[in-house]
Amino acid sequence: MAKTKTQTLKGFRDFLPEEMAIRQKVIDTLKEVFESYGYEPLETPALEYSETLLGKYGEEADKMVYTFKDKGKRDIGLIYDLTVPASKILALYSQKINLPFKRYQIQRIWRAEKPQKGRYREVLQCDIDTFGTTSPLADAEIIAIIYDCLKKLNFKKFTIRINSRQVLFQLMKDLGITQEKKQLSVFRSLDKLEKVKPEEVKKELENKGLSPEKINKLFSLIKSAQPDDNLKQLFDYLKNFGIEEKYYQFDPSLVRGLDYYTGPIFETYVEEPKIGSITGGGRYDKLVADLGGPNIPATGTTIGLDRICDVIKEKNLMPELSPTPTRVLVTIFSPEYLVKSMEVADKLRKADINTEVYLEPNAKLDKQLKYGDRKNIPFVIILGPEEIKRKIITLRDMKAKTQKQLTLQQLLAKVA
Amino acid sequence: MAKTKTQTLKGFRDFLPEEMAIRQKVIDTLKEVFESYGYEPLETPALEYSETLLGKYGEEADKMVYTFKDKGKRDIGLIYDLTVPASKILALYSQKINLPFKRYQIQRIWRAEKPQKGRYREVLQCDIDTFGTTSPLADAEIIAIIYDCLKKLNFKKFTIRINSRQVLFQLMKDLGITQEKKQLSVFRSLDKLEKVKPEEVKKELENKGLSPEKINKLFSLIKSAQPDDNLKQLFDYLKNFGIEEKYYQFDPSLVRGLDYYTGPIFETYVEEPKIGSITGGGRYDKLVADLGGPNIPATGTTIGLDRICDVIKEKNLMPELSPTPTRVLVTIFSPEYLVKSMEVADKLRKADINTEVYLEPNAKLDKQLKYGDRKNIPFVIILGPEEIKRKIITLRDMKAKTQKQLTLQQLLAKVA
Repeated sequence: MAKTKTQTLKGFRDFLPEEMAIRQKVIDTLKEVFESYGYEPLETPALEYSETLLGKYGEEADKMVYTFKDKGKRDIGLIYDLTVPASKILALYSQKINLPFKRYQIQRIWRAEKPQKGRYREVLQCDIDTFGTTSPLADAEIIAIIYDCLKKLNFKKFTIRINSRQVLFQLMKDLGITQEKKQLSVFRSLDKLEKVKPEEVKKELENKGLSPEKINKLFSLIKSAQPDDNLKQLFDYLKNFGIEEKYYQFDPSLVRGLDYYTGPIFETYVEEPKIGSITGGGRYDKLVADLGGPNIPATGTTIGLDRICDVIKEKNLMPELSPTPTRVLVTIFSPEYLVKSMEVADKLRKADINTEVYLEPNAKLDKQLKYGDRKNIPFVIILGPEEIKRKIITLRDMKAKTQKQLTLQQLLAKVA
Repeated sequence: MAKTKTQTLKGFRDFLPEEMAIRQKVIDTLKEVFESYGYEPLETPALEYSETLLGKYGEEADKMVYTFKDKGKRDIGLIYDLTVPASKILALYSQKINLPFKRYQIQRIWRAEKPQKGRYREVLQCDIDTFGTTSPLADAEIIAIIYDCLKKLNFKKFTIRINSRQVLFQLMKDLGITQEKKQLSVFRSLDKLEKVKPEEVKKELENKGLSPEKINKLFSLIKSAQPDDNLKQLFDYLKNFGIEEKYYQFDPSLVRGLDYYTGPIFETYVEEPKIGSITGGGRYDKLVADLGGPNIPATGTTIGLDRICDVIKEKNLMPELSPTPTRVLVTIFSPEYLVKSMEVADKLRKADINTEVYLEPNAKLDKQLKYGDRKNIPFVIILGPEEIKRKIITLRDMKAKTQKQLTLQQLLAKVA
């Protein structure tokens, strides 16, 4: 085999075990909350026909879909979000799916973005969506789940901003912008207000043909917009869910960047660190039909795992999390005592204690201890001729740097 | 948006919730076993430079790697296995990784194979590997974990076949085939014996330039081959791990199809259903160096999640598994009683009972019950004016088709 110069692609990341510990803890927490509300798991392919993926997000997003021809000359692409793949499921299997259908989906998606801080080309998305009902109770439940997830993850301060595309569509009509394509194009420009200066957005809107007067009127209409009846009902439901009011607010300036939204939309922000939105979602009642399926309304959200993990690390929200799953390292005194070490490890494992035996029977004890220390394993067992004769076990507490001689029963109680 | 004709790509699969329930249960079980032996989680990108992926598996496999040019004209590809990406990690981060490094990795891989029963273009692989030691104790531990996993998954009958590339390399030398490239090419042909007739393999070997006499001698040498010292030591360790002997055997006809193996190799087979190997792995001591890293020996296995799930379904090995995570459905008697239903649901959730409220406050009770029944939710709660007046809850057991009136405390005890 020829030697290769190896590197990881820009915008892509390798997750070593310490990083994975946080990610897994977050995923487990999200799953637990999703399932507590009756959301069921779903998975779909990473690759789809380009036709399925393109034309759903807006022009600029379409350019960021990873598309290519496969060996059978099919035009295919890597999925860009989980909303389109889930909607595909409803389009393809509507006959056998029980509505309302509540599913969660935790999968990678790919975006050919310019790599920068907090923006990656490969991202793990955690989505929940409800298909088959237009009730604002469904939208409210999605928001309640976001709230529960962040509370369970020890987030102290966050704001869920809520608006509705219906409010925005009405506002466009009031401005005399009636063509849907034009409306969506204006939304995409307004969506940039989070990232760029208002002047730049205004310039972009001018380039799209809006007069300076219209643009000024647009900005003042946004400021004074009020929730419509549907949104009022949604806010009532949020109260019923018991969400504290300081965690959400009506924000008429929220537009969301993707074309497929039709009703309530919502995003979550944290003040610290300044990291953009950590969730984003809304109602998209036409997407399943656009994908060739029946008329099935839908609402849901993405929870951005990467940014959530960034916040957890920066604010140290999981101080107790162990960087390794291993609880005990059993060292090998010398090859002839290997069997004894393996026996103790087996007993610990049978008591549900994650235990490893050092894998080189000839290694010096010092090297083995150093391995345990560097891996942050809390307990190390030493089992030599003296211990075996006296039917005891030497247990070293790696943090306290203390050592004790225990019977197997005492050991099990101590490390459990 | 234009309407799309939507379909899932051939060789790719959508996993609806019922299917996912089995997959998640298997993944959870495997993770639990992996962590019980001190293996730590790792994740790497789905896309890598083509240079990293190609030239590691053999010519035929290279053709099945999904490669393409990205928008920056880079030659990239979707990963073909998890062994090369994990080895990349050791090549890139050897400075900060504590050896021996034991990691597990559960990710999708892609192969442009001809789709057929049991062969897919997108597969979830579950890998464990140990980097940094040549000790056969490490190989034995991998086999012990395979054994533990299958036992925990209720597999009754399986055979782990074990051989060593060293035994095969010696055999090649005895035959006068000394060039490594030629040896590997012969191995790739022999690997097909599981799938095609011996005559076809013999024909292929003839086409590769081996005389009929040499081919016959090769087949008889394979039959009479014996374990070398390293393999004998490995078998001793398997006994120390407490693996029952009927579950593994020395099999000199086992060769494995991929080029990177250098030492012990192993595959697991079940008799029923006839499904090919459900695990495959071995030692690959040169791959990290081939990827530009230091000399770091390695051994490991893939556990084929798809085939394992196929066996579980066919042999009904998880009869108790619930197809839905939801335990209780709380119906809505009418919109004015919604708040009461939400309160009960909240209490159940706080008691760690997965509970959903039906999402349409105006739906007829009959429709709500039908939804619960079709989703296989075990319990349904009815909460109308009568129940609220008497401070009780009507609980319907959907399987037994019985109904009881309970206090909240009785309810919590009953459905927990």
